[in-house]
Amino acid sequence: MDAGAAQPHWRRVAILGVGLIGGSLARVLKAQGAADEIVGCGRQQQNLETARQLGIIDQFVLDPVQAVREADLVLLGAPVLATAALLAEIAPHLAEQAVVTDVASVKGVVVEAARQQLGEKLARFVPAHPIAGAETSGAAASRADLFVDHRVILTPLAQTAADALEQVRALWRMTGALVEEMPVQRHDQIFAATSHLPHLLAFTLVNAVARQGGEAGIIHYAAGGFRDMTRIAASDPTLWHDIFLTNKDALLQSLEQFQQELEVFRQAIVEDDSAQISKMLLHSRTMRNKLSNSN
Amino acid sequence: MDAGAAQPHWRRVAILGVGLIGGSLARVLKAQGAADEIVGCGRQQQNLETARQLGIIDQFVLDPVQAVREADLVLLGAPVLATAALLAEIAPHLAEQAVVTDVASVKGVVVEAARQQLGEKLARFVPAHPIAGAETSGAAASRADLFVDHRVILTPLAQTAADALEQVRALWRMTGALVEEMPVQRHDQIFAATSHLPHLLAFTLVNAVARQGGEAGIIHYAAGGFRDMTRIAASDPTLWHDIFLTNKDALLQSLEQFQQELEVFRQAIVEDDSAQISKMLLHSRTMRNKLSNSN
Repeated sequence: MDAGAAQPHWRRVAILGVGLIGGSLARVLKAQGAADEIVGCGRQQQNLETARQLGIIDQFVLDPVQAVREADLVLLGAPVLATAALLAEIAPHLAEQAVVTDVASVKGVVVEAARQQLGEKLARFVPAHPIAGAETSGAAASRADLFVDHRVILTPLAQTAADALEQVRALWRMTGALVEEMPVQRHDQIFAATSHLPHLLAFTLVNAVARQGGEAGIIHYAAGGFRDMTRIAASDPTLWHDIFLTNKDALLQSLEQFQQELEVFRQAIVEDDSAQISKMLLHSRTMRNKLSNSN
Repeated sequence: MDAGAAQPHWRRVAILGVGLIGGSLARVLKAQGAADEIVGCGRQQQNLETARQLGIIDQFVLDPVQAVREADLVLLGAPVLATAALLAEIAPHLAEQAVVTDVASVKGVVVEAARQQLGEKLARFVPAHPIAGAETSGAAASRADLFVDHRVILTPLAQTAADALEQVRALWRMTGALVEEMPVQRHDQIFAATSHLPHLLAFTLVNAVARQGGEAGIIHYAAGGFRDMTRIAASDPTLWHDIFLTNKDALLQSLEQFQQELEVFRQAIVEDDSAQISKMLLHSRTMRNKLSNSN
């Protein structure tokens, strides 16, 4: 890539994990003519076949090491734990100037793996997290407009090389996303509170209602509120398994604050404290409306 | 109304509370020519003026007693506590054969008020709960199609007169709703689990995140999951204040079951219990998908 050029260009891009996110990135690269060649890699050969037939990738291999050789851009499009494992696997085989980036939802554990595995190449690694997704998955669900107007958070390190960071910034600007940067720890705290905790509550709510209601019972009457609130409980279990395990500390901290707040509300109900209930409902509506009006 | 007729007809319908629900019912009555005259009543004169200008009601009065005199159908379109208070106020002034029905989200407390206030006229009272609503309110937001394909739960009592029940069934069938019947207590348990608890969690989540994130902080990054899950936190505070206070026992029971489930999940995260986390996520997705495919 020409440093500083408005439109980036890569000779060979390796996408490890051609799912919804990786596939959508490949579509953007194709649409913009930003890569001479895109090599896909993954564990499900059928998905890779689909991606090639759709013209999203030019070829695929099943071996990550083979995929990253001679690539000047390596995109890790996998869940958190697989991303950390891939970093270990590909580290010795990366070209010297290759830029590596990822899309994992938790940054702390991925950065820790990069520190341990990449050695001097740590400067070429740019951690990223696109805030986009859906309850669909696989290359067939990918779309070139998936990231338009969505946030992408980059969490560069003190060691990150300026040109590597600029390449990843340019990549994401190409997708139409809103690119932001913040420290790794702040990222993981923010998403523990605004994404990981809500998912944990949604999964738990579905299980609690299912337990209470039996098979064809209560859940049959679940109305709008329940439906809206638990839509995210249909999300990919592997993805969330990894997130809950790897953002454990920040998530447990957010959960504790939620439980404190819930206890105050519960007490107000137990004590028929009409004024306190009204106060909490009004505060909640005000904050929720503020959210609707922002962004 | 002619008993047993396919299309019901009332001479004078009194709607106490011409909001989203009451206004939408009035629109259906008008569209179907099912009432000679509709009298609106409420506390906000401006809203009643709007309803009359829109042709939803024929006239309005500010005094509930005056509204129900000579009405053969009385619709209470108010939140739970206001509904109970209205029953007490209008009881001595109802015509002997007038049918009274309501739309409150909690049935136990309304039925209890009816038992205490209506005396022999209890047989003319048919408790109802339409499962429709929106984050909008007021007569201006009402729509004739609000109830189409939505459930309406009737919770008739042992004392309810067959012809009164049939009139209210016919009223709701006219709206395009799916009419069901169940005991009062079962209604309140089901909605504690599937509606009241989810709302409590959504209100609490918004407050917890707002507290954690400060004014222009974390909430700014709240992504799809949080947005979906907390949309219901923008709901009418008065409505939910009443629900939390009046369905207290069933709600606290549902909350306890949720908290038990949450503690199991929390422990699995604390202990890095990968297998248990996977199991809970898979169960949740299975139950959630079952819900999506039903109804």
